[in-house]
Amino acid sequence: MIDRADAERLDAADALRAWRDEFVIPDPDLIYLDGNSLGMTPRRTVAALRDAVERQWAGDLITSWWEHGWLDMPLDVGARLAPLLGAAPGAVAVHDSTTVGIFQLVNVALDLGTAARGGPVIAIDRSDFPTDRYVAEGVARLRGGEVRAGLDDLDGVDVVVRSMVDYRTAEIADVAAETARARAAGAETVWDLSHAVGVLDLDLPALGADLAVGCTYKFLNGGPGSPAFTYVAEHLHDRITQPIWGWFGQADQFAMDRPFDPRPGIGRLLNGTPGILGLVGAREGIAVTAEAGIAAIAAKARELTELGITIADQLGLETISPRAAERRGGHVAIRHADASRLHGELLARKVVVDKRDPDILRLGMSPLTTRFTDVFDALTTLAELTQQPSGER
Amino acid sequence: MIDRADAERLDAADALRAWRDEFVIPDPDLIYLDGNSLGMTPRRTVAALRDAVERQWAGDLITSWWEHGWLDMPLDVGARLAPLLGAAPGAVAVHDSTTVGIFQLVNVALDLGTAARGGPVIAIDRSDFPTDRYVAEGVARLRGGEVRAGLDDLDGVDVVVRSMVDYRTAEIADVAAETARARAAGAETVWDLSHAVGVLDLDLPALGADLAVGCTYKFLNGGPGSPAFTYVAEHLHDRITQPIWGWFGQADQFAMDRPFDPRPGIGRLLNGTPGILGLVGAREGIAVTAEAGIAAIAAKARELTELGITIADQLGLETISPRAAERRGGHVAIRHADASRLHGELLARKVVVDKRDPDILRLGMSPLTTRFTDVFDALTTLAELTQQPSGER
Repeated sequence: MIDRADAERLDAADALRAWRDEFVIPDPDLIYLDGNSLGMTPRRTVAALRDAVERQWAGDLITSWWEHGWLDMPLDVGARLAPLLGAAPGAVAVHDSTTVGIFQLVNVALDLGTAARGGPVIAIDRSDFPTDRYVAEGVARLRGGEVRAGLDDLDGVDVVVRSMVDYRTAEIADVAAETARARAAGAETVWDLSHAVGVLDLDLPALGADLAVGCTYKFLNGGPGSPAFTYVAEHLHDRITQPIWGWFGQADQFAMDRPFDPRPGIGRLLNGTPGILGLVGAREGIAVTAEAGIAAIAAKARELTELGITIADQLGLETISPRAAERRGGHVAIRHADASRLHGELLARKVVVDKRDPDILRLGMSPLTTRFTDVFDALTTLAELTQQPSGER
Repeated sequence: MIDRADAERLDAADALRAWRDEFVIPDPDLIYLDGNSLGMTPRRTVAALRDAVERQWAGDLITSWWEHGWLDMPLDVGARLAPLLGAAPGAVAVHDSTTVGIFQLVNVALDLGTAARGGPVIAIDRSDFPTDRYVAEGVARLRGGEVRAGLDDLDGVDVVVRSMVDYRTAEIADVAAETARARAAGAETVWDLSHAVGVLDLDLPALGADLAVGCTYKFLNGGPGSPAFTYVAEHLHDRITQPIWGWFGQADQFAMDRPFDPRPGIGRLLNGTPGILGLVGAREGIAVTAEAGIAAIAAKARELTELGITIADQLGLETISPRAAERRGGHVAIRHADASRLHGELLARKVVVDKRDPDILRLGMSPLTTRFTDVFDALTTLAELTQQPSGER
């Protein structure tokens, strides 16, 4: 039996424990297990945003685009993120939203492939995250194609859209095998890494993944709606054409009288004027993760989720996340018929978790801010609440 | 002859003069005539961003999406912007970049029209702003159509993309007549209001404009890369389909297992998770403009630019902006063969203007922050510099 003293011992031995001090802790009693929806605020981000607003924008005004590197931020922040993906610095750009990024890369993938004009087929799992499914539907409509629900049969499929980590169960897809299987069927795969980046130690080139997107506001702690990233393997850069052409994707951005001529490299994924404040948040969050070390973070995520599953078992809670650590992302999903009630009652006790309809409670374990005792206390509280049905039911 | 005392008298009589105190003035000697590229920082924005980062994100974390209205911000900020366009509150959304907005609305317009699949024609003026031209080229490629350069002949055109205020000369297009002319030819017009919003008193319904986009970082002072807006006339809401489908554009955003079903109204233009910090900046900048009153702002813009042209004439500088106030936006363009040198030498004297290759200096006059004496001093300094050719040439 695991008891609280065991969790305390794990915290005391945790090599990453000091990183929690790098974050704003708004309430010492708060147990925040929602870093996989919105990560906590790095202290350095508070300072960096004040600087960007109060010294750069307010003080240096338009010259900041050059003097403070704003023009280069989407690629500069992309280069800082790249090592977390195992990618080359020039293979990643940070810009726009995950939705826009998927839209761009699905179109890129369709143009790379052999899809007959008029009938592209995009495959996606029925249970994948809604925005991924919606983008696929929208592109299929725009290009006169169709969406195939389900990934078992990829015959005739042009593009697969797929999350690496299931947003409900935390199950990790076998990226290498699934990318290869799709490729053997003639399909490119666009990987959504939103629940993977910053918590798994990724090596996209080794996995053979050529196209990926993800967000920076979960485990990377970039802030609310901070920009997403796009990754395109370098060997494809000269062959891709993305659909949203704008002045930040132009080879000579300030040439005013020329036709569109895409930038070399990943810069061609850029389009409109980037949101600088969002990029500042992304940059700082990425820096914290990079400095702490993604290998150590990924290792602690496995320990945290392992502890969570063990305690859930011990308390009689139903876990639907994989028991094999190598198949599990950075959260643990508990299934309970009273998920909605429990979610609210946990919140009232300062235990913040996610609810995903109809019956899932998702406990995100973000290694830089989550303590082993947080996992113990949250699940213990949850188990107690399951024994005290409220009058609301 | 106008002299500096005349400019001082105009400042003293300026009903909007107190609004300058609402902005951060980083240097009392700075003459900032670049508000039409990046507006100055409202003091309230500094406070609002600190609150959003340090109290909302850091303090209330994920619950801020509900507790602080983040989920509704794109439509809430759109509703605050709407009166500046003469639009109904439900006809405007603030989200993404101008480039993405044009991409969305050109696709919307193509689907509204009668374009034969496989051959849509998008017309745009050769001299329009690059990103507008690039988007048009990109959509034409994506949909197997073509771009027609020039707006004289609209026969066979499906969509016109057009700036209301020319980014170089400040000339205002006749929106009502040009929208009607395009419509008579069977074409929808997507208006780019980036250099118009916040400085002209607009009434899009009266002008018959049905589709428009624009940025919030120029005269609206929203901050670097603050999000753009899309406007769609209400009578079209139920008929439009935009191409980038995402969870923020879904009728029931948190329903996880349904096909895409667009939100009613302008909300269907939304797609991915919005950048909250950029929206905070847009919200505050829009509020300052709305409180000061767009009619008074537009009137002062005419006076400022009128003064600028008069002084330029008096100093022998060549002005290429319209002399009729009703045809002129919020900036004055000076043509000079030494524009690059003069731009740098003005900057060294704390006079910030824009340069647009090859030979244009653009003086943006932002009525909430620009004084009549700023216009006088900037042009006087410019005229002096034209008499002192540097050794760099």
